[in-house]
Amino acid sequence: MPEPKTLGELDEAAVISIFTSGAGAPGPEVLVPNGDDAAAWTVGAGRAVVATTDTLVEGVHFDLSFAPPRLVGRKLIAVNVSDLAAMGAEPRYLLLSLCLPRETPVERARGIATGIRERVAIHGLQLIGGNVTRTRGPLILGATLIGEAEPSRLLLRTASQVGDAIFVTGTIGDARLGLSAGKEQQRDEQQAELLRRQLDPEPRAAAGLALAATGRVHACCDLSDGLGRDLRRMVEPAGLGAIIEASELPLSRALLHVARAQGLDPVQEAVAGGEDYELLLTAPPEAEAELCAACSSAGVPLKRIGRVTREPELLLDAGGHHAPLAGGFDHFASS
Amino acid sequence: MPEPKTLGELDEAAVISIFTSGAGAPGPEVLVPNGDDAAAWTVGAGRAVVATTDTLVEGVHFDLSFAPPRLVGRKLIAVNVSDLAAMGAEPRYLLLSLCLPRETPVERARGIATGIRERVAIHGLQLIGGNVTRTRGPLILGATLIGEAEPSRLLLRTASQVGDAIFVTGTIGDARLGLSAGKEQQRDEQQAELLRRQLDPEPRAAAGLALAATGRVHACCDLSDGLGRDLRRMVEPAGLGAIIEASELPLSRALLHVARAQGLDPVQEAVAGGEDYELLLTAPPEAEAELCAACSSAGVPLKRIGRVTREPELLLDAGGHHAPLAGGFDHFASS
Repeated sequence: MPEPKTLGELDEAAVISIFTSGAGAPGPEVLVPNGDDAAAWTVGAGRAVVATTDTLVEGVHFDLSFAPPRLVGRKLIAVNVSDLAAMGAEPRYLLLSLCLPRETPVERARGIATGIRERVAIHGLQLIGGNVTRTRGPLILGATLIGEAEPSRLLLRTASQVGDAIFVTGTIGDARLGLSAGKEQQRDEQQAELLRRQLDPEPRAAAGLALAATGRVHACCDLSDGLGRDLRRMVEPAGLGAIIEASELPLSRALLHVARAQGLDPVQEAVAGGEDYELLLTAPPEAEAELCAACSSAGVPLKRIGRVTREPELLLDAGGHHAPLAGGFDHFASS
Repeated sequence: MPEPKTLGELDEAAVISIFTSGAGAPGPEVLVPNGDDAAAWTVGAGRAVVATTDTLVEGVHFDLSFAPPRLVGRKLIAVNVSDLAAMGAEPRYLLLSLCLPRETPVERARGIATGIRERVAIHGLQLIGGNVTRTRGPLILGATLIGEAEPSRLLLRTASQVGDAIFVTGTIGDARLGLSAGKEQQRDEQQAELLRRQLDPEPRAAAGLALAATGRVHACCDLSDGLGRDLRRMVEPAGLGAIIEASELPLSRALLHVARAQGLDPVQEAVAGGEDYELLLTAPPEAEAELCAACSSAGVPLKRIGRVTREPELLLDAGGHHAPLAGGFDHFASS
């Protein structure tokens, strides 16, 4: 028999095994592992269950002309881990939902599966279920991630208070500029660094847990759609606003270099840029040292970038000049 | 402003609200409802968490040329409820993962949302999360359903024993013949009845719980890919086989009528037919009366159709003549 080239030459069981092989043994708390109608497990006494789901669509969230399949698989898991990190929850159980064209090269499917397995191993996840189906359209990769948290330590999105300081982990804006870099024929070293952040984001799993453990965080979310948009979602439902100090935004050397080379304003890039998967949080200003220490123990820098205000406006303070904070990505309205 | 006609004229928040409006208040055990990075809730002491995910792809699982959007929405939830029913679990929490082309008529999205809401109400579910994204391909509807069960009462797929009787709820084969009926220009009353079973399956939620409560069931799964295929998945991993009595298969009057009118063998249709979402189970023969009573209390008939054998073959006994039991649907290999 010749080696199969596309998924259309395999039966469903063979396609499933590409994604389930090497999944490892289920933990002792798992009563029913992958392979039944549903999976079942028991939860630690007094612990909360935390669940999220996110999907990557070919042509919308990834472009196989420059994204290696392995990194697409890594990113599928990373964006879901990021959501649980932003809750202060520990990720545990993974369900995959994959819609694959029959023309998909087997090598591409194996690449995606390798990336998924890498992140499953990094975060100690268990693959407990899912489904694969064929589709006549783009490749669509969905994941549901379920974890556990201490109920009293959950990090909510909209629990900010007036006067809170606003913090962000890592650097922001890189992933958005990296996307433009990915579409170019040639890239310098800085563009390659930004592209890496776009293709292979590092979810702040340990930082989220460490921040939750301090008990000092008022509100937290992950930066998937950009600082402007995600900060709005954080403070607006509480009727609050925010001022961000342009000079305090944590910008990478690669972003500064590339933005300047292309005549772009690095601050606007950082505000508008989505897909950084850093954590955005608010807390009393006096908690700064404790929060920075918590993030440092998780190997991630934390930067204070502004404050929560009573006035329901989002402003950018650039050297004393206040301008509206704009930007961010809208899945249906944007091109 | 003119009334928007397609989803491309709406922003992401407006698209989300089509699916989240009227979702109802979260239960007291829900710590973080829909709208944060992830949802969180507490689980009853000693209870198991049970999770499943399933996806419907336009052009593969539904055909909008004859499937009303409302019924597509109902079916998305029904197929997931069916998986939890087959575990003896109570469905509770729903996450949606919707990939929608921007050309999708707003009315179509509203129809799908109405169907989802109907099933959410019927089964007492809570919509706790999800995502919507645009796609350039077919409409893809994914759902993850999470519930609870008594750990000692979980119904596993592969725990059959030699000598067990095999039972099935309701009637089988209807949905498959209904699919052919859907593609025809004109349908008689019986074809319409079969089409209804294809488009709007009734998951055996109450029967699954009632069967689990008896403590007599050895193994259980739902019939999504057909008796031949699902029975094989049930007994083969345990190294066992089965004999099905052709004369005992529960066939609807509509199936008998339509199969005969089209010159089809009703038994073969019942064996091959997928998407019935009935429950298939094995139990000691002496439990028959108790199991029938449990299903009857849930408003569903239960029929004994065969037995589990030591010989690892799947056979169909038609009047003493044994033939291999074949059939079923393969997502990648079939056309």
